[in-house]
Amino acid sequence: MTIRADGRANDQLRDVKITRGWLDHAEGSVLVEFGHTRVLIAASVTEGVPRWRKGSGLGWVTSEYAMLPRSTHTRSDRESIKGRVGGRTHEISRLIGRSLRAVIDYQALGENTIVLDCDVLQADGGTRTASITGAYVALADAVDWLRHRNLLAGEPLTGSVAAVSVGVVGGDPMLDLCYTEDAAAEVDMNVVMSGAGEFIEVQGTAEGKPFDRTTLDDLLELGSAGCVALTRLQEKALAGR
Amino acid sequence: MTIRADGRANDQLRDVKITRGWLDHAEGSVLVEFGHTRVLIAASVTEGVPRWRKGSGLGWVTSEYAMLPRSTHTRSDRESIKGRVGGRTHEISRLIGRSLRAVIDYQALGENTIVLDCDVLQADGGTRTASITGAYVALADAVDWLRHRNLLAGEPLTGSVAAVSVGVVGGDPMLDLCYTEDAAAEVDMNVVMSGAGEFIEVQGTAEGKPFDRTTLDDLLELGSAGCVALTRLQEKALAGR
Amino acid sequence: MTIRADGRANDQLRDVKITRGWLDHAEGSVLVEFGHTRVLIAASVTEGVPRWRKGSGLGWVTSEYAMLPRSTHTRSDRESIKGRVGGRTHEISRLIGRSLRAVIDYQALGENTIVLDCDVLQADGGTRTASITGAYVALADAVDWLRHRNLLAGEPLTGSVAAVSVGVVGGDPMLDLCYTEDAAAEVDMNVVMSGAGEFIEVQGTAEGKPFDRTTLDDLLELGSAGCVALTRLQEKALAGR
Amino acid sequence: MTIRADGRANDQLRDVKITRGWLDHAEGSVLVEFGHTRVLIAASVTEGVPRWRKGSGLGWVTSEYAMLPRSTHTRSDRESIKGRVGGRTHEISRLIGRSLRAVIDYQALGENTIVLDCDVLQADGGTRTASITGAYVALADAVDWLRHRNLLAGEPLTGSVAAVSVGVVGGDPMLDLCYTEDAAAEVDMNVVMSGAGEFIEVQGTAEGKPFDRTTLDDLLELGSAGCVALTRLQEKALAGR
Amino acid sequence: MTIRADGRANDQLRDVKITRGWLDHAEGSVLVEFGHTRVLIAASVTEGVPRWRKGSGLGWVTSEYAMLPRSTHTRSDRESIKGRVGGRTHEISRLIGRSLRAVIDYQALGENTIVLDCDVLQADGGTRTASITGAYVALADAVDWLRHRNLLAGEPLTGSVAAVSVGVVGGDPMLDLCYTEDAAAEVDMNVVMSGAGEFIEVQGTAEGKPFDRTTLDDLLELGSAGCVALTRLQEKALAGR
Amino acid sequence: MTIRADGRANDQLRDVKITRGWLDHAEGSVLVEFGHTRVLIAASVTEGVPRWRKGSGLGWVTSEYAMLPRSTHTRSDRESIKGRVGGRTHEISRLIGRSLRAVIDYQALGENTIVLDCDVLQADGGTRTASITGAYVALADAVDWLRHRNLLAGEPLTGSVAAVSVGVVGGDPMLDLCYTEDAAAEVDMNVVMSGAGEFIEVQGTAEGKPFDRTTLDDLLELGSAGCVALTRLQEKALAGR
Repeated sequence: MTIRADGRANDQLRDVKITRGWLDHAEGSVLVEFGHTRVLIAASVTEGVPRWRKGSGLGWVTSEYAMLPRSTHTRSDRESIKGRVGGRTHEISRLIGRSLRAVIDYQALGENTIVLDCDVLQADGGTRTASITGAYVALADAVDWLRHRNLLAGEPLTGSVAAVSVGVVGGDPMLDLCYTEDAAAEVDMNVVMSGAGEFIEVQGTAEGKPFDRTTLDDLLELGSAGCVALTRLQEKALAGR
Repeated sequence: MTIRADGRANDQLRDVKITRGWLDHAEGSVLVEFGHTRVLIAASVTEGVPRWRKGSGLGWVTSEYAMLPRSTHTRSDRESIKGRVGGRTHEISRLIGRSLRAVIDYQALGENTIVLDCDVLQADGGTRTASITGAYVALADAVDWLRHRNLLAGEPLTGSVAAVSVGVVGGDPMLDLCYTEDAAAEVDMNVVMSGAGEFIEVQGTAEGKPFDRTTLDDLLELGSAGCVALTRLQEKALAGR
Repeated sequence: MTIRADGRANDQLRDVKITRGWLDHAEGSVLVEFGHTRVLIAASVTEGVPRWRKGSGLGWVTSEYAMLPRSTHTRSDRESIKGRVGGRTHEISRLIGRSLRAVIDYQALGENTIVLDCDVLQADGGTRTASITGAYVALADAVDWLRHRNLLAGEPLTGSVAAVSVGVVGGDPMLDLCYTEDAAAEVDMNVVMSGAGEFIEVQGTAEGKPFDRTTLDDLLELGSAGCVALTRLQEKALAGR
Repeated sequence: MTIRADGRANDQLRDVKITRGWLDHAEGSVLVEFGHTRVLIAASVTEGVPRWRKGSGLGWVTSEYAMLPRSTHTRSDRESIKGRVGGRTHEISRLIGRSLRAVIDYQALGENTIVLDCDVLQADGGTRTASITGAYVALADAVDWLRHRNLLAGEPLTGSVAAVSVGVVGGDPMLDLCYTEDAAAEVDMNVVMSGAGEFIEVQGTAEGKPFDRTTLDDLLELGSAGCVALTRLQEKALAGR
Repeated sequence: MTIRADGRANDQLRDVKITRGWLDHAEGSVLVEFGHTRVLIAASVTEGVPRWRKGSGLGWVTSEYAMLPRSTHTRSDRESIKGRVGGRTHEISRLIGRSLRAVIDYQALGENTIVLDCDVLQADGGTRTASITGAYVALADAVDWLRHRNLLAGEPLTGSVAAVSVGVVGGDPMLDLCYTEDAAAEVDMNVVMSGAGEFIEVQGTAEGKPFDRTTLDDLLELGSAGCVALTRLQEKALAGR
Repeated sequence: MTIRADGRANDQLRDVKITRGWLDHAEGSVLVEFGHTRVLIAASVTEGVPRWRKGSGLGWVTSEYAMLPRSTHTRSDRESIKGRVGGRTHEISRLIGRSLRAVIDYQALGENTIVLDCDVLQADGGTRTASITGAYVALADAVDWLRHRNLLAGEPLTGSVAAVSVGVVGGDPMLDLCYTEDAAAEVDMNVVMSGAGEFIEVQGTAEGKPFDRTTLDDLLELGSAGCVALTRLQEKALAGR
């Protein structure tokens, strides 16, 4: 059995911290940390919805993900300066938005839009799953903000969402990979689940060679357990709202 | 039980046609059809590899996916005119490239690059999985082209790749969704497998509400069976090279 | 006298095929082939006209031309990825649109827009003239589509349009140049004519050194004869609508 | 017979002024005026050639055309701000470069590049033909600059180039159209000729309805005569170098 | 004491020429020359204001600055071709607009927009201050144009604006630096003042090492005197409107 | 006399906090806070210099400034998504880089590059001056990092840099404006000074109407005193390195 760099058991999460209200202006905001991975999430509420949805009575939730240039070990060029958003950035933004929309009742939200900006301040693996996990909490705060102003047509949150990465490293299935583990993984999977224990998104990728059904099942187990633990941490962070 | 629009059984593929050599200039080319979905794939071989890989002795395989403006029911604007490649396009290009690289031995390929251009001439659901399935065949032809010129350092193909979409429509798991089924699906999944029956990529998404483990297992079964059938069609198309 | 690569006489067209209805969704579609040159044309009808023309009661016809990356002998980069449409692409799109508009009665078309997408699947010289020749046929089908739905205010087609390339190769004027002839041509000319035998556009360019009036006259003769032959092929393709 | 707005005969040029040396830094520069049309042309010489031509021993000549935002009757947006060069701009830049290259001996030029920047300060029709006519003079001065520094391998100019617009307005063929004539023209043609009276480029376009061979011949005559007159004005401007 | 390249005293302006009405179409236009620096300025009036200001009853004044590619000693690439406006261009455009807006009464201007296009035809230092000085004159002419058509709600000009560069070269404070002086300056400052002798903008930059308060005071004196002289030249140019 | 929103005296700074080492990967990093304004600064060291400086033996220091979309009261669109960096962003990035370079000895730095990324996490006025003040501290840490690895050719820092905003609000000169003060200011000035009390950059702008020399002098006094205080805070933050 491989011993993990930081001494964790294979089915153990890193230290996870969820700090609400990190920003003064945003309707909801969270600084979420999974070990050294640190993502600042701002939930912005605006009245109205995108043009293609106007007059429908339905709300909208979307997300944008980005990394600060020096969030990584070596500095990356800014996408604003390159003049185009990269494929990876686009893909992760879409994943986060889709994941959160899975627990939204658009009718209850009314014609309001909530944008979740997930900016990675420091990256050490699992930035997309940390973003989803933190974004749910910021979203819940933004929904509260709307509720206190009587701007909702009902309860827009039909559940909670948490996400975690799993992978096979050195032949062993592991939970919540840090950067060095992720870089060495043979299989890489992201699991997004509802608080009720159902799947919202499953994305598994063979990094080196194809993997069999048993491996897939092991990773799904590990990811499910991780999401259950994260759901509890979210509940704790949101307790006493 | 729902009856499918075209009368297929839930576990039945559409008519799949793989026409090799559709283009005169490309080192490998395929017109692949899954029912009304029609993708033209060109495999282009160039000596040398991208800058970051030079001198490594290793080859490279990549892919670009795009849709013609009127491949869809209503015309879409060209990405060349919009001046930026959309998130979906990027995401699918990356998926195709990653899927094919899972069966490539870079050492054996030597410092050669193969680009797979997948241009959707007509879209009726499953364009990304049709692209992967067809691209493998074009890739095999491009590898042959290199082999006949003694430009390889060994056998670069470590296996074959096929892909298919599955989903839950009206409560029923179904194989190889056409556009109307895809638009109505509650769960949407793409399964990419090797010819040896192992997973290369699994991407499942809850479209409406989260799904449970049983549904996930049903879809994986259906997708696996579909990939086995597609692998046979690829072998048949490539027979007698 | 030079003997042409494929044995044609200097005043002879390549094999020209016009296949209507190649796409299921488009209101008009044509796969046009001039020898190895193969262009897929989709005519898309939309109600309404661009903003600057609204309320005028007049219709609009426009075109976009593009080449698939591997339509050429060596692969070209996608303009969508480069983030800008090249000068040559723009120029040809404008030429095609202008040529077709020469036979359109905007009043009769009513406030409808027809976009002609000309995507070159394989290039072997003469892609712009093949596009114009094929686009007229797709346009005629799209006009029929509007007519059958009683969406026209009259007959919008005031004539037909055909186009062909001519040039001087090895001192000899020749009709319908293939790629290798085009690359070697001393003078290069595109002739666009109406079915009634009048000129819509004439573009002649000295590739190496200036040319005299006699050469110009010879090329105009050759081009006119070519357009007459193409007009007949268009009529045949459209016969029995 | 139509009487022209400014009282000119149909075969008469506007007042044409060619002022050399308008700029202090450029190796050649010309302010060319065709009536109210005013184009500032700078010829910039740089040692070396574009990458694709390096080591060939051959030189290169190219051009860029642009309009100041308020050169036109109503202000146009800057292409730098729109972030893309329009189709018309591209097309004219290409035409000017091609026209000048028709009288260049690349071998004699040696591995030097001359860029002709044609910036329209005021537009009143015929900006592209005025640009070509003026650019030839600036080019000649830049070639002199190279000659005086012994940087040439021979005489790079194999002839001179002049250009003029012609058109059919109110049924009458006319020379050198101003903006209002151009806007009303039924046929529009640009004729680029060498000083020796041969054609370099001929571009004729039906603006309203197709035109017959007789009209084409009339316009070619008119354009040829105009180019002869412009050639004399160029010679006069360059006299006594 | 350093002797200046062109023999000027340290507190002496270059020859300044302000030529009004250089363009036929623009509502105001000026060719302004500070020695070899030559900027063409067009003031364009349009009815209405940008979207964010509609219905306010207030006007708007803005500016765009650009350099022709060969205005400089060696040719620069066009920003239209690079596809993005550089930082320096943006910064100067903003400075010019801000400076002119300091003497505008938006209420009196009514819902009209005036755009000042400042295109540098030849650059020899001080292009931004020459632009501001000339743009005020073009603006005054554009305001007159509006006044003569009774399109104003009062007098929109609350004063005049002039600008000049100052700097420390070889230890000596100097007025109105030419390019070679500017390139050698230890401190570089732009002073924008109203005709009433008050400051609109002051921008001082240490090019080599920080500078003390005495130097700052000297430069402010020099710049103020320069602006007074320029104000007189503007008045003279506008006399007898 | 106006009483300030937060009860400060007119010549009083907000609470300023400088937290070093906020990031794990960067060679220098600072979270700088001026009241509610919060900027994260990362100093990235790379061996080598930009192409135009190679082989000179000289180093380079540059900066990029950006705001997170929800750093402001209402969310702004990302510049990466707009595909272009705005004028204000460019201008501030240039100011920060220029200010830091004023205290750099390029020779002593050797051919190393230091990039200062200043990302505004929360904006409440004075983000550019907070960035400069914090960036100096991150720069000092990055220089230490180089020193400990013996990668320097001497002491690259010739001094320190601090910056502060001043302005006239309600007729009173005030130090270190917060957002609401800045929005109401009649005059707005940024003062950048060396630790030795000399000016590096002075930028004063009339927001409403021009200002006189006395006002300018008052603001310079106020700014100078503010910079002295900030210099002390920087020294304290860096003490005991």
